[in-house]
Amino acid sequence: MKATAKANTNIALIKYWGKRDEKLFLPMNSSLSVTLDRFYTITTVEFNESFEKDIFFLDNVIASDKEVEKVSKFLDKVRIAAGVTYPALVSSENKVPTAAGFASSASGFAALAAAAAKALQLDLSGRELSVLARQGSGSACRSIYGGFVEWHKGIEADGSDSFANQLLDENAWDFSILSVLVASEQKNVSSRDGMRQTVLTSPFYKGWLDTIEGDLSALRDAIGDRDFDSLGKVMESNALKMHGTMLGAEPPILYWQSGTMDVIHHIQLLRSSGIPVYFTIDAGPNVKVLCMPKHEQIVYESLIKLPKVKKVFTCHPGEGVTYL
Amino acid sequence: MKATAKANTNIALIKYWGKRDEKLFLPMNSSLSVTLDRFYTITTVEFNESFEKDIFFLDNVIASDKEVEKVSKFLDKVRIAAGVTYPALVSSENKVPTAAGFASSASGFAALAAAAAKALQLDLSGRELSVLARQGSGSACRSIYGGFVEWHKGIEADGSDSFANQLLDENAWDFSILSVLVASEQKNVSSRDGMRQTVLTSPFYKGWLDTIEGDLSALRDAIGDRDFDSLGKVMESNALKMHGTMLGAEPPILYWQSGTMDVIHHIQLLRSSGIPVYFTIDAGPNVKVLCMPKHEQIVYESLIKLPKVKKVFTCHPGEGVTYL
Repeated sequence: MKATAKANTNIALIKYWGKRDEKLFLPMNSSLSVTLDRFYTITTVEFNESFEKDIFFLDNVIASDKEVEKVSKFLDKVRIAAGVTYPALVSSENKVPTAAGFASSASGFAALAAAAAKALQLDLSGRELSVLARQGSGSACRSIYGGFVEWHKGIEADGSDSFANQLLDENAWDFSILSVLVASEQKNVSSRDGMRQTVLTSPFYKGWLDTIEGDLSALRDAIGDRDFDSLGKVMESNALKMHGTMLGAEPPILYWQSGTMDVIHHIQLLRSSGIPVYFTIDAGPNVKVLCMPKHEQIVYESLIKLPKVKKVFTCHPGEGVTYL
Repeated sequence: MKATAKANTNIALIKYWGKRDEKLFLPMNSSLSVTLDRFYTITTVEFNESFEKDIFFLDNVIASDKEVEKVSKFLDKVRIAAGVTYPALVSSENKVPTAAGFASSASGFAALAAAAAKALQLDLSGRELSVLARQGSGSACRSIYGGFVEWHKGIEADGSDSFANQLLDENAWDFSILSVLVASEQKNVSSRDGMRQTVLTSPFYKGWLDTIEGDLSALRDAIGDRDFDSLGKVMESNALKMHGTMLGAEPPILYWQSGTMDVIHHIQLLRSSGIPVYFTIDAGPNVKVLCMPKHEQIVYESLIKLPKVKKVFTCHPGEGVTYL
């Protein structure tokens, strides 16, 4: 009753913004991501009836009560599915530094879901595993698969049809994803609160939802055609639209900082010089930049020179969950 | 048949964004502004049947053909109303430097309308004069009056009910308006094009229109109560909402630069330290900051220290059109 799984983080090209059910992590809109090759979580789960209670080591340190509670609550779903009540020892190695501009919840819950389900020999399909991981953190369902992944929002109240599937293998199309760090401070509004506030108060939220299917369809076409410029344009518009949606919230939500603007304008400048390069921005100030591998070096070198840029991490499309 | 008028520029607290008729400058939404005391245009118009054609001096220099054509087209409206065809000699002194972050079209067409109408003894009411000025540049209709001014969008196709009126005299409530310059370059998308693109393509535009009446009503209340914090909050939300609307356009429109973010975050910092200070941003990167006169000095001094801030101009509510 012990298993180890590794899951990579992912970056949304069509963003997930807004929940229809906060407990089940059911989204208001479908989203589309690419799984990355460099930032991951490795988690070992061992169930044992002789354990007294759930224990959670994060990077070899006992986790806080709050974190243990989150993990326990998630493991309960797996235990219920397996018909057992054994406590678990969970040990996680988190290789998604906050300082790299990625949240670790996606890879964290994908790895936890995979390891726990395997430890209890649940023999879940990819779809079932994505539904399970989703209940720990929404975007975790997309990290089950490698390459390009779509998370279908679903319509059922129990979330059974809110799952992810792979659109294209990570080896089928390569490009470079540069995570450009302009700030490492804690953001002033959490994604959870930002989503809630936007859904409840922004007059733009309906417009956001109304255009998601069009964005998804355009992005699916771009992926099918390996059309980098189309992918970049849709991704960029979608990210700016998400941030626009938040600016309409009451009170308004603004995650951007001066470095964010510098990177955006620099990308526009590079593009006007003929290099196909595009950006996306999650709920925070940092920017992710996409370009073709042949331009990776020149894009990296020009970004790292910007005064407000602290660090640039380069990734590529990566694989889904693996078992170690 | 000669008259001289002076008109101040104005800054919108509830923004005008989007036209329902481009030729008549009819707006999609009503707006609310405060006329300023420091930046103005003085224009002299002389009609004379012995003149060969319209001549337009701008700051003592013969204006370009394009500018003369704009002025002539506007004067035609006045000539038709007066039943004359005399050419005019127009001489304008523009004290609204582009480098101060204000457009000169509002004060420019307000002064031109007032001087031309007076020269031809049209004896227009304030409302009629605002309707005339509006046909040169939308926001010009608000510069006819001093203090707080509302521009009613109207519903008639001929624009006869799209006029401005004064809500509160400039002497009834004083506060400081600081124009914070972070960039002086030409913006990449003109307001005219930005408006059109937003109306045609942004899925947020309906949400923008749907919330205008609420914003106007809240701002009218704030003005009636001399409630500076309420005024500031509504103004700030409305400005961010306008920029959010543009981020939804296709392609997205982003007027902000890194200095814009620095000023916004600095204002939020000042506010969290207990100083009631708020911002608004027109279709460009520069920021206008509102505070109470007793905080003007401290706000000015802290803004001018920001690395990206090039200049800060301080204004106060000012008067409407006057005749010299």
